[in-house]
Formats: sequence, C-alpha cells, structure tokens
Amino acid sequence: MEEKKRTAARLSGLLLLLLGVSMIPSFLVAVWYNEISSIGSFAAVIIPLVMIGGTMTKLTEDLEVRIKMRYGFLIVTLAWLLFSLGGALPLTISGAVPSYVDAFFEMCSGFSTTGSSILTDIESLPKSMLFWRSFSHWLGGMGIIVFVTAVLPSIGIEGQLIASAETPGPTMDKLTPKYSDTARNLYMLYVGITIAEIILLILGGMGIYDSLVHSFGTVGTGGFSNYAENVGHFTSPYIRWVIIIFMMMCGVNFNLYFVMFRQGLRAMLKDDELKYYLGFILVPTVLISITLITSGTFTDVFKGITSAAFNVVGFITTTGYGTDDFTLWPTFAQMLLFFLFFVGASTSSTGGGVKVLRVLIGLKLIRRGIMLKIHPNRVYSIKLNGKSVPQEVMTNIANFIFFYILVVVVSTLLISINGFDIVTTVSAVLTCIGNVGPGFELIGPAGNFSIFSDFSKVILALLMIAGRLELFTFFMLFSPHYWNPDKA
Amino acid sequence: MEEKKRTAARLSGLLLLLLGVSMIPSFLVAVWYNEISSIGSFAAVIIPLVMIGGTMTKLTEDLEVRIKMRYGFLIVTLAWLLFSLGGALPLTISGAVPSYVDAFFEMCSGFSTTGSSILTDIESLPKSMLFWRSFSHWLGGMGIIVFVTAVLPSIGIEGQLIASAETPGPTMDKLTPKYSDTARNLYMLYVGITIAEIILLILGGMGIYDSLVHSFGTVGTGGFSNYAENVGHFTSPYIRWVIIIFMMMCGVNFNLYFVMFRQGLRAMLKDDELKYYLGFILVPTVLISITLITSGTFTDVFKGITSAAFNVVGFITTTGYGTDDFTLWPTFAQMLLFFLFFVGASTSSTGGGVKVLRVLIGLKLIRRGIMLKIHPNRVYSIKLNGKSVPQEVMTNIANFIFFYILVVVVSTLLISINGFDIVTTVSAVLTCIGNVGPGFELIGPAGNFSIFSDFSKVILALLMIAGRLELFTFFMLFSPHYWNPDKA
Repeated sequence: MEEKKRTAARLSGLLLLLLGVSMIPSFLVAVWYNEISSIGSFAAVIIPLVMIGGTMTKLTEDLEVRIKMRYGFLIVTLAWLLFSLGGALPLTISGAVPSYVDAFFEMCSGFSTTGSSILTDIESLPKSMLFWRSFSHWLGGMGIIVFVTAVLPSIGIEGQLIASAETPGPTMDKLTPKYSDTARNLYMLYVGITIAEIILLILGGMGIYDSLVHSFGTVGTGGFSNYAENVGHFTSPYIRWVIIIFMMMCGVNFNLYFVMFRQGLRAMLKDDELKYYLGFILVPTVLISITLITSGTFTDVFKGITSAAFNVVGFITTTGYGTDDFTLWPTFAQMLLFFLFFVGASTSSTGGGVKVLRVLIGLKLIRRGIMLKIHPNRVYSIKLNGKSVPQEVMTNIANFIFFYILVVVVSTLLISINGFDIVTTVSAVLTCIGNVGPGFELIGPAGNFSIFSDFSKVILALLMIAGRLELFTFFMLFSPHYWNPDKA
Repeated sequence: MEEKKRTAARLSGLLLLLLGVSMIPSFLVAVWYNEISSIGSFAAVIIPLVMIGGTMTKLTEDLEVRIKMRYGFLIVTLAWLLFSLGGALPLTISGAVPSYVDAFFEMCSGFSTTGSSILTDIESLPKSMLFWRSFSHWLGGMGIIVFVTAVLPSIGIEGQLIASAETPGPTMDKLTPKYSDTARNLYMLYVGITIAEIILLILGGMGIYDSLVHSFGTVGTGGFSNYAENVGHFTSPYIRWVIIIFMMMCGVNFNLYFVMFRQGLRAMLKDDELKYYLGFILVPTVLISITLITSGTFTDVFKGITSAAFNVVGFITTTGYGTDDFTLWPTFAQMLLFFLFFVGASTSSTGGGVKVLRVLIGLKLIRRGIMLKIHPNRVYSIKLNGKSVPQEVMTNIANFIFFYILVVVVSTLLISINGFDIVTTVSAVLTCIGNVGPGFELIGPAGNFSIFSDFSKVILALLMIAGRLELFTFFMLFSPHYWNPDKA
C-alpha cells in the first residue's frame, strides 16, 4: 500500500514538473513581448508546479516504478486531463479567457490536437497565450506519437492494434534500451520536421512568431492559428502549399519514415495504409477541385485546386486548418469533406479519427463479404502488406468502429439538448471525437464553439481526449470491471 | 443451354403472371368506384401480363426447376425490380403519375415497403391507384417475410444470418414439405394479422377503404396513406394506438409468433432481440414524451405520449407512418428519431434497416472490446439467447454494417450533386436504404421526394430495393465474380 502511494506520488510529481517546465517557452514569449499580466500568470502557475512536482519527484527518487498495463491506461488519461486542467490556469488567471470552463475546453482542444476554439476574437489575446495554446498542440502531438508508437511498441499492424491489449504497460523509469532508442528517434524526427517547417515558412516571408505558431499547429495536426481567418490570413500560395505538404507528412505513420531512411522511398510507398491515405487525399481533391471550378466558386483554376487540396488535407489529417469558408461551397464538396471526418489520418501519426487502416480493413471486409456470398465454401483471408490479417485484429477493428459510432450517437444526443440544428450538433461531435477542429453550420470556419452551454463544452472537451486516446483507453476507466478486475 | 433458357422462361413467366394477378384487386376497386381511366389502365396491363406469363408457364410446365443458390439472389432482385417496373405502368398509363420515373420511384417505395413518395397532391389520385400503391406494401411485406424466413430457412440467428450464404437456393416448383409448411403458416399469420387490423380499424369508425389502405401500409411496414396528412388525418386516439400496436407487432421476428403459439408468451419474451427491440421503443418514447411535454410542444400529456410513441414506433419499425411534423420538435427529440434510422426492426420481420439483432451484437462486441482491454488474456464469448454466437456470424454482421455505411456514403455523395442541404441529402439516403419513408428538412412529413432530379430518384429507388434485400443480395450482382464464378 505504501508502495502504491509512493508510485502514485512519483508519477504525479513527474507530470506536474513536466507541465510546469512545458510552460516556460510561453513564459519567455510573454517576457519578450513584455505582456505583464501574462508574465505574472505564467509565473504563478509554473513556480508552484515546478516546486511541488520537483519535491515529489525528489522524495521518491529511490523508487523503482513498475506499473501494470491496466494502470498505464489510467496514467495516460490522467496525464491528458491534468495537462488540460493545469494548462487552462494561465488563460483564466490572466483574464485572457475569463471562464475556466472555456479555458479548459480550449486546452483540451490544444493537447488533444483538435483545434476547435471558443474564442470569439482570437486576435485580441496576448501573443504569449496564443503561443501557449499552439504549443499545446505540439506537445500533444509528440505525446500521442510516443504513446502509440513507443509506449505501446509498434511493429506494423500487430503492434498498433493488438499491442494496446497485449503488451506490458509503460515502465516509465526503467526504459528498455529498445524503448528509449525508439522514443529518441521519434523525438528527433518530430523536432526535425517542426524545424524544417519553421524554416520553410520563414523563407516564404512569414514572421518568426507566426511560423512557430503555425508549425506547432501543423506538426501536431492541431489547427490553432493566431488569426481569425486561420491560414486564410496568408494569401501566398507558397505558404499554403508548405502547410499542405507538412500536414500530409504528419498524417503518415511515423514509423514509415524509418523504413524510408533504412530502405528507401520505394519500400515506404509499398505500405497499403499509405497508398489508401494518398488515395483518400487525391480523389476528393480532384472531385472538389472540379466542383469548385465548374460551379464558379473559383474562377482561377490554380486557386481552386489549392483550396480543395488545403481543405481536404486539413480534414483528413484532422488538422482542421482552413483557408476558406467551405460551408458556402456546393453540397457535393461539403459532403465529401463531411465524410472525411470519419476517415482520419494514418495509425501512428499525430492525426486522429477512425484512421485509414481501419477504414481500409473495413473495405476489405466488405469485399470479402460479397465474395463469401458468391462462393460460400471458399476461404478468403484479408491481406495487408502481403500478410494475412489475424481474425483477432479484424475483431478489434470492428469493436473500435462500433464503439466510435456508439460514442457519437450518445454524445450527439447529449449535445442536442442545447437545441442547435442537426448539422451543427452532429458535426460538433464528429469534429471533436475525430480531433479535427471546425464543424459545419454555426461552428463552420466563420463560427466558433462559444455558442454551446458549459455542459456541452465539457462533454465536447472530454470527447476530444477520448478520441485522442482511441476511446477504449479513456472509457474503460468508467467500467466497474476496471476498478474491480478480479470480479468475473 | 436449352435447359437454362427454359428455366429462365418458366421463372419469368411465373413472375409476370403473379404481377398480373396481383393487380386484380386494384382493378376491382377501380370498377367499384367507377374510375374509368383506371379500369382501362389496369386492364391494359393485366391482360398482356396474364396472357404472356400464363403462356410461358404453360409451355414449360414439364420442367423441373432446380436453381443454384447464386441464381436465387438474381431472381429475388429481378423480381423486386420487375414488380416495380411493371407496377408503375398503370400509374403512368392512367395519367395519375405522368412521369414514368416518378411512378417507378413510387412503386419501388411500395414494393420495398419504404413509403417515400413523390406525390405532391396525394388526395387528387384515383382511389384505385392509391389502393394499388398501398397493396404493393402488403405484397412486398409478404414477399420479404417469405424470402427471409422460408426461402432462406431460418432457425434463429444461424438461420437468419448464415443461411443466406449456406442454404441451397429456392427450388420454386419442388417445395419440400417443410418449406411449404413454413410458408403456409407464414401466409396465414400475415393474412390473419392484416384481417385483425382491418376489423379493429373499422370498429374504430374508419371506412372500409381507408382501413384496407392503412392496414396494408402497417402490416407491410410501408407507410403509404391516402391522405396528405398521413395518419395525422385520424385524430382518434383509438385508431392511432391500434396502428401503433400493429406496427410494433410487424416489427417483431415472425418466427417468434410460432414460438408463442407453441410454448406461450413467456418463451417468446425470452428472446434477446425482442427484449432490445422493446427497449429501443420504450426508452426513446419516454425520453421524447418528456421532451415534448416539458418543452411545451404538447400541453396534453396523453397526446404527447401518443405522438412520441407513434413516431418512435413508426421509425423503428421503418413503417414511416406519422401523425405530426417532427421537424418542428426540439432538436433532442429529432436527433433520437434520426438515430432510429440506423436501428430498424427485428430480423425476419417486415421492417427494414440494420436490424435490432445486428445492433445488439454490435453493442455486445463493444462490451467485449472493453473487457479484453482490461483482461487481455481472458476469453469472452458473445451470447445470444444463452448460446455462444459463432465468430463467423459476428464477422458477417461487421461486414454488413460496414457495407451499409459504405453504401450510405457513396449514395449520399451521388444525391448531394442535387445541391440540397446536408440534412435533406443524408436523411433521403438513410430513409430509403432503411425503408423508412420520411426524412428531415425538405423531405420531412410536410415535404416529399418530388424535389429530386430523375437521376437522384432512380438512385434512391434502387437504394430502397438494395436495402430491402439486405444489400449483398442486390450488390453482388454488380461483382464480376458473380458472373464469372470460376475465376479465382
């Protein structure tokens, strides 16, 4: 019992310390721009966090932490909640976001890399506060990459999808050499991509501050901008295409980059999920481009293609950056974007949603279903990257998709109490659970989430975290069996 | 080859004859009401159908028809298409529905027991034509009951879900004693329920013609009425509750009635699907009643409960009868009805949709998914009526649900070209594939499907038939493998 308490203390201490330290860059931005109230607010949060967290860590230094898998899920969920709750403090203390519920929503949106906002006048906020919410995207993106690819050791599909149920939990202090290698490589890749984008944006004439903010939002597939018009603020096609390409890069399974480094681009392109991911970008982009140009929404062909590509990539990678108010586009184009809510990015990327891999397996199951009706006695195995997918994995995928649908249904009913129209209600839930950002109708690119009641905001904020952690990790904590595992 | 041609001729002959004969009651209605143009139109269609069909049947009388399973699917699909195409003729010939595409839509809606209509002024149509489209519900309902429970021998869940892939196809001329027994019992039950409803409606003061029309619509879970206000035309609570109870009865697995006759009501109520079916009716009815009463939509409590129950049962049984314009109700109530689109009635009932059984298994899969994350090494089997569900059945169910989603997505994109708002577009597809009837926004109870282009009408009409035949039966015909089965 004493051991358990000390473990809890050590882990909480580490999290508090980490949260405090992670606010330091934003504090420095406040100092740089001489934003007095922000300096004070950050200091008022950082100092106690570092002191308490540091003390708790120091006092338990001798402890060798070993955690059961079951508690691993709890820690991950609590980490995301704690960061959102704590991260909201400077926003409210400084008066930038007076309502704490609003600030909590905004930081859940940040750390879950969603990008939905309750801010009605973004540009009036202090630069350091806007920096903090964008930086939370970057931290959240790194967190999820490490969570799904390193903490749950990933070896292709088996890793990604079975691992979560089968591997031992994270043992935070005693990392195996393999784990720390993978984690270090991932950190370096993530940081490298971020630096590359920052440089390319600056070369395109964007200011340093703006390029930091937008690179954090892109690499974490978040979507926060410091401009009311979002990326629409930047009219340069170069800047838009840099962001399109980096959004695309961050929606790819990060492990594939190591395949590329070791075996070349051709080996990387053999991955089935990557092929479908690129297809899910290309086909809607072509269809929407044609729609926008033939309907006269755009008279300039290149601008039409850029807008189509930007919004398609923004949706499928679940970044949610936008350059246009797509709610004014023809229904066909809107419908295509709407369905990309359900697809999401690749597994082991920073993107959210159902994930291309699951959609791909779903499509293969449909094909097999038809074949089985035609030839009832034959055996069809479903292959991925040339290997048969075990039945267990397919069952896991079906479970996940059904659970996704159930959570959407229940949440939509809860949000519908607010009384907004059907499209606003449904798209709010889909955009939050999929970690996308914008919705349709009242919460389209021209609107924001301030219209919702506090009850709805809390539901939507929790939905972002649940979606970010692939649902089961979050919701299993509500099962009595989780807390009482020896019960049959 | 000669044998094949003669088999095709015999089956086509039987279908043509059956279609011709099935129009005779409507012809008699035309004679009774002395509707001259209808008398002529029905005669002009019935006479050639009976003559050609009769000759083809007579000439092939000696043939012993044996069909492979594969062709069974083709015949069923062609039967539904042929009846819709042929059934549309009297409507267009008489001038009641001048556009043949409209008439085809209306009859697909009839035979598939959907109930969506392109009619803008229902009450202006001849009584015999309104009788014909309602009678098509009744025929379609009987057809589907025989198709799913007798043609594909049903023994509980295995029967319903595996049978479709494993049983030999229908051998129409050589019925086994067991098959003809089951079929005769089903016919009798179906006719019995219809007669009971007709009598109860007449006792409630409804005219004979109206009670025939509404009983056909109820028992087939179709939803056509001869009044613009649909069942809202009848203000009597007695009549509304009779229809509620009969809709509920026809959304139940018909095999369960035989269980009841043999083993009593208690044995029937032990069925898991039935329990969930009743739950899916009770819970939304209670929630919507509370919403309607507290929001002041209804001041009379009993009227509020009646309207809630009527519309919930109308949606879940996929009948689509309505008494109110629910698009004016609070969003929460609308959202609940909207989700019932996805549930549908029980297997082996006349209702459509995904079916309660599949939803129920989906929910059990979610629960198992959570348990497997908590206890990765335990084995959990999914039970239904106390028996373990084979993995194969669960895979079939997952296949079906994924396919349902895919068809909805593709169809919605095709319909969205029409340019109506998102809710109209999505609900049109959901209501047609689920064989419900009304949609939301422009196609709510106050609207109709005449707004769509011919292209959209044809897509939606085919969708009704595809949904009615559980998708695979319809879409497998589009697979090159179906036509070339020996190809690997």
